[in-house]
Amino acid sequence: MSAGPKFPQVEYAESSGALRRCYDDMQSVLRVPWVMFAARSLAVFGGFVPAAWQAAAPVFGTDRVERAADELRALAVLPAADPPDPRPRLAELDFDEARIGEVRRALDALNYGNVKYLLLITAWCEGIQGRSSGGTAPDGPEPATLPAGPPESMAALHLVDPRGADKRVLQLLTRVTDMHLHHGPSSDFRVLAGWPDFLEVALDDVLGPVVRSACYETTALALLERARAHVRRFPGPAGLTPEQALAVCTETEVAAITGLLFLFQRFILDVTIDMVRCSQALDGRDAAASSPFSAR
Amino acid sequence: MSAGPKFPQVEYAESSGALRRCYDDMQSVLRVPWVMFAARSLAVFGGFVPAAWQAAAPVFGTDRVERAADELRALAVLPAADPPDPRPRLAELDFDEARIGEVRRALDALNYGNVKYLLLITAWCEGIQGRSSGGTAPDGPEPATLPAGPPESMAALHLVDPRGADKRVLQLLTRVTDMHLHHGPSSDFRVLAGWPDFLEVALDDVLGPVVRSACYETTALALLERARAHVRRFPGPAGLTPEQALAVCTETEVAAITGLLFLFQRFILDVTIDMVRCSQALDGRDAAASSPFSAR
Repeated sequence: MSAGPKFPQVEYAESSGALRRCYDDMQSVLRVPWVMFAARSLAVFGGFVPAAWQAAAPVFGTDRVERAADELRALAVLPAADPPDPRPRLAELDFDEARIGEVRRALDALNYGNVKYLLLITAWCEGIQGRSSGGTAPDGPEPATLPAGPPESMAALHLVDPRGADKRVLQLLTRVTDMHLHHGPSSDFRVLAGWPDFLEVALDDVLGPVVRSACYETTALALLERARAHVRRFPGPAGLTPEQALAVCTETEVAAITGLLFLFQRFILDVTIDMVRCSQALDGRDAAASSPFSAR
Repeated sequence: MSAGPKFPQVEYAESSGALRRCYDDMQSVLRVPWVMFAARSLAVFGGFVPAAWQAAAPVFGTDRVERAADELRALAVLPAADPPDPRPRLAELDFDEARIGEVRRALDALNYGNVKYLLLITAWCEGIQGRSSGGTAPDGPEPATLPAGPPESMAALHLVDPRGADKRVLQLLTRVTDMHLHHGPSSDFRVLAGWPDFLEVALDDVLGPVVRSACYETTALALLERARAHVRRFPGPAGLTPEQALAVCTETEVAAITGLLFLFQRFILDVTIDMVRCSQALDGRDAAASSPFSAR
């Protein structure tokens, strides 16, 4: 990653009209405090995001997705040795427990939402590639509707803008991007960039040793397969077929969306594993495998 | 994959002007009888393909790429048991040695070219993501220029058009697409669709048991890493940075290209492994690991 032009996207603050209403509804239904990078990027291509969200919203507001998300979160814990506790190095940097608490609260919000976004992008990705995004299994019991909006105790998230960041933060975000072979920093890492000392220790000790290792890749594949299995069993399609997408996009936009969904699906898989591992480093395997916000 | 709308692309026969000249030069310099699906798809986004090819052409006409391609081809042989010989089942279908010879000649052309296209898309993918696509290592000895144009003995390739295909062929191409989680059939499988009996036996016995297995994924990752290592050592950049792409594309087109390059990189990795394995099924591991067309 270079410090080049910003990847085209409609940030939340820049959104208006139908797109803003879609962003708001997405955050409310998913109960999360941010709109995924993928949706912000896809928003520049015709009417895909509002139409695809309309298809997804009914099931994503139910406990069926909540339980699928719980399962994926637990599956995102790498079957490897525990990462080292970052506290000793952080203590040397005068990074105290109060600030670790801030990081933990951000991670809790991210870990709650990442697996939901993984399910969402998987439904959209399968749909646009002409495969099932739901409605292919016999109906199970009627799912229960979840309360709308992020839980009150969930932290608000601040995404650092790489364009205004200082040199150290920019270098850290470049390192994140290149170690994953990504095209830019995810929302999650833009949040962690608010605590550069933590991010640096996490990259050195928690993520660097495992990213793109064999066990990381195996975990990403297993998550993808489980996400696809959950999506296929949704009560109805949560994505758009190419034909449906053509009602709100040009052919060229559909091609662009197909590429970006594929790219962001892998991107979200990686980030999901990473954030769970950061939680594991702070609070252990059991805490990382579950979410304090999971609704029952 | 559904039998839905065709993925947007500029087919060779539909190309004209600067794009046709680029397609012709690409086939001549790479010494192959087809233009990769990725380039045909990217061709709908601004002036990226001709400009990116101009960056790549100098090194791709040299023995440096030929030797890198040779290495990748050998690395694409899966570290698994040999696939079964398809001849007994083919014989039951009256598929004789003469037709096996036709398939072999098509596979030889595809296996010669796939690894070159893997290097090309890797250079383009790294470049658009802001990483090195060459020029970062000290110069080695001056590479030798290869003769232009496909070798005379190389078979011409016919790509079956899924839109005009009969039901059986369409089902086979859908099976190929879905087993790989692709968005559509590659050029290579559109070629093999000219021999549906062979394609069916290959899917049943040669590819089905290995595609997306652990050893397949490990091989794809190893190929990607080696391709990236070769690209970094090219004498100069063979891809475009986002800033360079913005000289010939809009911001939105650059986003689309970033997504599609990522998608097609994985796509080519898969197809490279598959075609090598088909050759291995017919003629053994050593034949699959090398190419009769490799220029010295």
